[in-house]
Amino acid sequence: MIYLDNAATTAPSPQAFACAAQEYREWYFNPSARYGGGFAVQKKLDGARKNLLAYIADPAAFELIFTSCGTEADNQAVFSSARRGNAVTTAGEHAAVERSFTELKNRGVEPRFAPLLSDGRADIEALLSLVDDKTSLVSVVHVNNETGAINDIADIARRVKKKNPRTVVHSDGVQAFGKLAFRLPKEVDLYSVSAHKIGGLKGTGALLKRKSLALAPFLHGGGQEGGLRSGTENVPGILAFAYAAAEKFPHIAENYEHAARLNARMWDMLSKSGRFMRISPADGSPYILSVSVAGARGEVLQRMLFDRGVCVGTGSACSSKNRFSRVIAACGYGEDVLDGVLRVSFSPENTVEEAEHAAAEMISVAEEFKGKF
Amino acid sequence: MIYLDNAATTAPSPQAFACAAQEYREWYFNPSARYGGGFAVQKKLDGARKNLLAYIADPAAFELIFTSCGTEADNQAVFSSARRGNAVTTAGEHAAVERSFTELKNRGVEPRFAPLLSDGRADIEALLSLVDDKTSLVSVVHVNNETGAINDIADIARRVKKKNPRTVVHSDGVQAFGKLAFRLPKEVDLYSVSAHKIGGLKGTGALLKRKSLALAPFLHGGGQEGGLRSGTENVPGILAFAYAAAEKFPHIAENYEHAARLNARMWDMLSKSGRFMRISPADGSPYILSVSVAGARGEVLQRMLFDRGVCVGTGSACSSKNRFSRVIAACGYGEDVLDGVLRVSFSPENTVEEAEHAAAEMISVAEEFKGKF
Repeated sequence: MIYLDNAATTAPSPQAFACAAQEYREWYFNPSARYGGGFAVQKKLDGARKNLLAYIADPAAFELIFTSCGTEADNQAVFSSARRGNAVTTAGEHAAVERSFTELKNRGVEPRFAPLLSDGRADIEALLSLVDDKTSLVSVVHVNNETGAINDIADIARRVKKKNPRTVVHSDGVQAFGKLAFRLPKEVDLYSVSAHKIGGLKGTGALLKRKSLALAPFLHGGGQEGGLRSGTENVPGILAFAYAAAEKFPHIAENYEHAARLNARMWDMLSKSGRFMRISPADGSPYILSVSVAGARGEVLQRMLFDRGVCVGTGSACSSKNRFSRVIAACGYGEDVLDGVLRVSFSPENTVEEAEHAAAEMISVAEEFKGKF
Repeated sequence: MIYLDNAATTAPSPQAFACAAQEYREWYFNPSARYGGGFAVQKKLDGARKNLLAYIADPAAFELIFTSCGTEADNQAVFSSARRGNAVTTAGEHAAVERSFTELKNRGVEPRFAPLLSDGRADIEALLSLVDDKTSLVSVVHVNNETGAINDIADIARRVKKKNPRTVVHSDGVQAFGKLAFRLPKEVDLYSVSAHKIGGLKGTGALLKRKSLALAPFLHGGGQEGGLRSGTENVPGILAFAYAAAEKFPHIAENYEHAARLNARMWDMLSKSGRFMRISPADGSPYILSVSVAGARGEVLQRMLFDRGVCVGTGSACSSKNRFSRVIAACGYGEDVLDGVLRVSFSPENTVEEAEHAAAEMISVAEEFKGKF
C-alpha cells in the first residue's frame, strides 16, 4: 500500500506509538492524583506541553492547551473569542472553522466570509475590508487542507490588528505544524494543531494561545488545562504527540525539500500525461498536490486507485458527504473540474519510487476516462 | 503496587490495549475516507457503537455519540439541553456537571441545586420541588464518584417527567457503566459514560441519547457522529472501549459480588481498628469505599500509603485543588471528618489479599495520628 492521504491522517510513528504504549502499560495514573504516580504523570504532561510549545512559539508569550483534536481547538478558538459583533473568516477554511462560523449566527454574532484568490489563498484586501470596529475575531487557515495554499498569517494578523487592535486573530495550523518552518508572530493570538497529522495518535490536539489573552473555558469540570479544558488528560496521546513532533521538527527543512521533490516528480509525470489539471498553487505547501482529471469523478478514481494499492484523497475527508469541495469551488473552478479532484498528500516517509508508482497508476486510471479540459 | 484508585482511572486492560494497538499499527485510515481502508475503519466504529449501546440500552430507542471523555459528554448534555428557563441538579455531582451548571448562569439559565441526604443520595423530594414548568434539564449522577451512593435515576426520571414532560433528564453514569447491572429506562434522555474507568483508554467517552431527542451539535465541523460531535474519531480508543466493555458486561454480577467482598473485608478490618469513620452508605456501589480518619489529613495519608505501595484516592481527583470535598460536605460532615477522607475504589482485578494488605497499611498509617471522632 502506497499511502498518500497524509493530510487526512498519518500512520502513527512506531516510536511515538511505543511511547504511548509504555504510558498505557505503566503510567496509567490520573495526572490529577495527589500522590507519586499522579505527580510523575503530571510532570511528563508538563514536559510535553513545554516541548511542543517551544517548537513554534516564544514560551514567554504563549501557552498551550491540550484538546482532543484539531476540531475541538478550532471550536474553542471561535466560540471563546467571537462573542459579540461580527467575526471574519475566509471561504477556504476547514469545516471545523467554517461550520463554527455558521453556528455563530445562532449565537448573535455575524459571520463574514472573505473570498479566495484563484490560487487558493485568502483575498487579503477583501478580508481586511470586512474587518471593522465590531470585529471580535478573524480566523484564517495557515495551510489550506485541500489545495496546500499558504496564507501569510503573520502579515494578515498585523494588518488586522492595525485596523482593530482588539480583534482576536486565530489560525488553523493543522496542516502547517511540523511541516513549515515557522514561528508564531505575536499578533496571532490563537493557533490550532493536531497530533494525528504528523505521526501522532488520533485523539489529541492543542490550542496555542497568547498568554495575555483571556479565554473562556470550553469544557467545564475538574479544572484541568488551567481551567480552560476540563476532563482527564489523554496523557499517552499527549506524550506521543510530543514524541512525533520531536521526530519532525529537527528535520523540518529537509522534510520540506523531500516533500517538494516528491510533489515535483509526481506533477512532472501527471502533467506530461495531459490528463491532469493542477489545482494546488506552485508556491503552496509541497505536502499537498491537488489535481483534477477531466471527465472523471474523483471518488471513482480514488476507489480504483485503492484497489491498485494507492491511497489518495479527494477533497477533505472531513467534508466527504458533499459532492463538490466548497473550498475548490471558491477558487473559481466549474463543475467539470470539481468533479474530478484528487488530493495527494505526502509524509516525509514517502519515497520518490512511491510517488512515481502512484503517478503511473493515477495516469493509468485517468486513461480509462475520455474527458478533456 | 496495590492500585485502589480505580474511580480516578483504571489500568487499561492489556487485551483492550492490544486491540487499540493493532488499530494504530494497521488501521490508521481516517474513517471518513471514501475508500476501502476508510470504509473498513468506519465499519469497526459502527460495530463498537452498536455493541456498547446494546449493553445498557434498547438500540431501537437510544443511540450513542462518541466523545473524548466523560466530561465532554456531561458538558454536551448540559449545554445542549439547558438553553432556557432553569435547570436542576444536585449537590452531589461530579465537577463536569457542577461546573457546567455554574456556567449556565452566564448563559441566561438559572441553575438550581438540590441537597443531598446524609447517605450521599440526592434528596428526591427537594429536587422535585425545584422542578417547574420552566425546567429544561434535570441532571442527577447515577453513582456518586466520591461516596458510591446510588441514585434511583429511573424513579427520579419518571417523577420529573410526571411533573414536566418536556424536561430533559440526564445522568452521569461514569461510575455505574460496566459496574451496576442496569438498563436505561426510557425516561432518561441522556447518559454519560467513560472508557478509562472500566479498563479502556483515556481519551474516549460517550453520550447515550434517546433517539427522539433533538440535540444541538457540540463540536462543529466535518459532521462526524451524526453531526453532533465533529472531529476525526479516536477509533483505536473507541475499539478499546468496546473491548473493555465486552470484558466487563458478561461478568457484571460476579464482579459486583467480588467488589462487595473486597469492600466488606476492608471495612471489617478498618472498623475494628476504631480509627475510621465510614462515609460510603452500606447500600452504595461496592466499588467505592469512602472513609475518614480522625485528626489526619487525607492527602498526607494518601502519600504515606503511596510510599508503602498502596494507591488510594482522597476526594475526587478531578477536584483535587480544593481542600474539602464539596460533595462530602454536602452530606453534612464537619471539618474534622472532611479533612481525613480517603477513597478506596476497586476494580474486579483486585484480590482479597490486596484489600487486606491495603487495610492493614491504612490502619498502620492512621495509628500515627492521634485524633478521635
